[in-house]
Amino acid sequence: MITSLITGGAGFIGSHVAKHCMDMGHKVVVLDDLSGGFEDHIPEGAIFEKGSVADAALVQQLFSKYQFTYVYHLAAYAAEGLSHFIRNFNYTNNLIGSVNLINESVKHKIKCFVFTSSIAVYGKGQLPMTEEMTPIPEDPYGVSKYAVELDLKAAHEMFGLNYVVFRPHNVYGENQNIGDKYRNVIGIFMNQIMQGKQLTIFGDGTQTRAFSYIDDVAIPIAKCVDVEASYNETFNIGADKPYTVNELAEVVCAEFGVTPNINYLSARNEVLHAYSSHAKAHKVFGAGLNLSLKDGIAKMASWARRVGARQSQEFGNIEITEKLPDGWQVITK
Amino acid sequence: MITSLITGGAGFIGSHVAKHCMDMGHKVVVLDDLSGGFEDHIPEGAIFEKGSVADAALVQQLFSKYQFTYVYHLAAYAAEGLSHFIRNFNYTNNLIGSVNLINESVKHKIKCFVFTSSIAVYGKGQLPMTEEMTPIPEDPYGVSKYAVELDLKAAHEMFGLNYVVFRPHNVYGENQNIGDKYRNVIGIFMNQIMQGKQLTIFGDGTQTRAFSYIDDVAIPIAKCVDVEASYNETFNIGADKPYTVNELAEVVCAEFGVTPNINYLSARNEVLHAYSSHAKAHKVFGAGLNLSLKDGIAKMASWARRVGARQSQEFGNIEITEKLPDGWQVITK
Ligand SMILES: NC(=O)c1ccc[n+]([C@@H]2O[C@H](COP(=O)([O-])OP(=O)(O)OC[C@H]3O[C@@H](n4cnc5c(N)ncnc54)[C@H](O)[C@@H]3O)[C@@H](O)[C@H]2O)c1
Ligand SMILES: NC(=O)c1ccc[n+]([C@@H]2O[C@H](COP(=O)([O-])OP(=O)(O)OC[C@H]3O[C@@H](n4cnc5c(N)ncnc54)[C@H](O)[C@@H]3O)[C@@H](O)[C@H]2O)c1
Repeated sequence: MITSLITGGAGFIGSHVAKHCMDMGHKVVVLDDLSGGFEDHIPEGAIFEKGSVADAALVQQLFSKYQFTYVYHLAAYAAEGLSHFIRNFNYTNNLIGSVNLINESVKHKIKCFVFTSSIAVYGKGQLPMTEEMTPIPEDPYGVSKYAVELDLKAAHEMFGLNYVVFRPHNVYGENQNIGDKYRNVIGIFMNQIMQGKQLTIFGDGTQTRAFSYIDDVAIPIAKCVDVEASYNETFNIGADKPYTVNELAEVVCAEFGVTPNINYLSARNEVLHAYSSHAKAHKVFGAGLNLSLKDGIAKMASWARRVGARQSQEFGNIEITEKLPDGWQVITK
Repeated sequence: MITSLITGGAGFIGSHVAKHCMDMGHKVVVLDDLSGGFEDHIPEGAIFEKGSVADAALVQQLFSKYQFTYVYHLAAYAAEGLSHFIRNFNYTNNLIGSVNLINESVKHKIKCFVFTSSIAVYGKGQLPMTEEMTPIPEDPYGVSKYAVELDLKAAHEMFGLNYVVFRPHNVYGENQNIGDKYRNVIGIFMNQIMQGKQLTIFGDGTQTRAFSYIDDVAIPIAKCVDVEASYNETFNIGADKPYTVNELAEVVCAEFGVTPNINYLSARNEVLHAYSSHAKAHKVFGAGLNLSLKDGIAKMASWARRVGARQSQEFGNIEITEKLPDGWQVITK
């Protein structure tokens, strides 16, 4: 019997990975604190443990209770732009949480630790981003992801822990949290359209990203544990074709049958252009679906229309308020 | 009136930096939890606040209370080899503690944040290590130091926080904690000799390090705030000439008038050879003393004989016990 821990399994990518692992016959345990996920995204038949990966005692307890074969670590707060303003929270959640899992994975000799890093590790590097480049992350979110990657390598060298690192590229699709105003531009657009609001774009909308449909990402993540060639390797993963945020707005508006009505906000401090080479992933995992943006958006939109718009929540504990981008200012405690 | 916060000011390098800052006319506040330092190393006239940099509320309170001009952040647990076995502690102490200080430094617009990183960031790079190389750290201690360096750069880009990063190379001298069996080979040797014990060396003793006398390190660290050319730059700092650990043992034994009697333990997973280029530091700060190993050891030994041997403490909370090097095994809680 294969038992897999999926942290963040109530979230967007994690809930899809959980589903694929169940299809592969794994017994699935989801650990999620529901800070950004939803209990009803957890696939039926999975065991749900509510709590935080940053809680070392809880993590210890779960490893003893279940004797996991694999760990899929997806729990994180992935708000790259906001991470400048929530440093302590960012590193506690994304790094301390990860090393708690690495510690127990070493002690319990699990077979493989699958980690979702991010293209945020690359910073403003050359394009396309390839796995051979040495990352130089430029924001606290990217730094926390890169630190976990390096720590996993150290754990592999010292203790023989196997890992697979994925660096997904702006993923979208069903189960995405469309109510988080700090991240996921596609979800934000859909939520704005369904509420009859203006779309908001930071800067002039010419920044480009290769938006990736969830299946192209979640399937290789789930399956990698059965692909020995992927062990102790790092993979860019996602779509190949970059679009401007303006083009994206057009595709989403067309799908919802509305005319683009855009409020351009001041530019954020962000990487302007980003696209990755996926040659390595294609070689090891096969080519994937590489769904067109239009088709992927259509699938996500039909789900979004079904679940409806979501109330945007304020992030409750901003640590630095200076230079917060337009629309992110909140009353801090 | 210039007010400087010196974290780790009860420790080895920090107590020297505190002393030089007082000589420069600063009002000095030391924040130290005494986990590795000693209250009687804090120079007379400095204000002592006992507590941890990992305590965000305390850090906030001190910044409001004192309105610091400069922050010298030296507090850390610098046991590189042990860091594999204490991941959670390592990142909490060395990274979360640092970002608490970075947050408050941004909010209070301090003039410069001086950070002691380490040559541990380089990993097994080319030699000599130069500041132009992109670091790839290979152990949790090095990863935590590099993460702080990257985070400081991000804070500079986003908020204009000035920083100076130092990467000191195996420092030794008066006030070093010679009772910590997990680090500081020179202190360990002196402590062993004064207790009539065998010296212990991991591996065959042919690994090399450029042992650096404290004045060559603490003086530029203290003075950099007055050297504008050093702002937002990173500097290797320390001695140029590498010695094998066997040669070091000979010099120390000669100073104490004893015949080397060495117990060679199994090799640890560590970088074998390390020496840095200090051309950049010499250009900006001047050449320094570059004391010979023999002269530096003589100075430290005369201090060590005065204070006497120290009882070695066990580190109380080892997280992973597998593969702990010889002599480090302890009963964990
Ligand atoms: N969506 C993307 O475009 C993208 C791109 C690159 C990397 N990633 C990474 O993929 C992973 C999943 O992201 P996602 O888009 O599904 O986000 P998501 O917010 O939908 O999912 C994250 C899940 O983790 C949970 N979580 C957060 N902090 C937790 C904690 N401390 N303890 C337990 N659970 C916690 C949240 O409740 C949520 O259910 C993250 O690690 C993210 O950094 C995502
Ligand atoms: N000694 C070296 O060779 C060397 C080399 C490279 C870098 N460094 C760095 O220089 C700095 C000083 O090192 P050192 O050799 O003087 O070590 P040290 O142990 O003598 O000094 C560190 C001081 O920090 C204090 N401290 C530790 N954790 C703390 C916390 N969470 N809150 C408050 N205080 C805390 C300790 O009590 C101690 O007084 C460290 O950042 C270390 O990583 C040292």
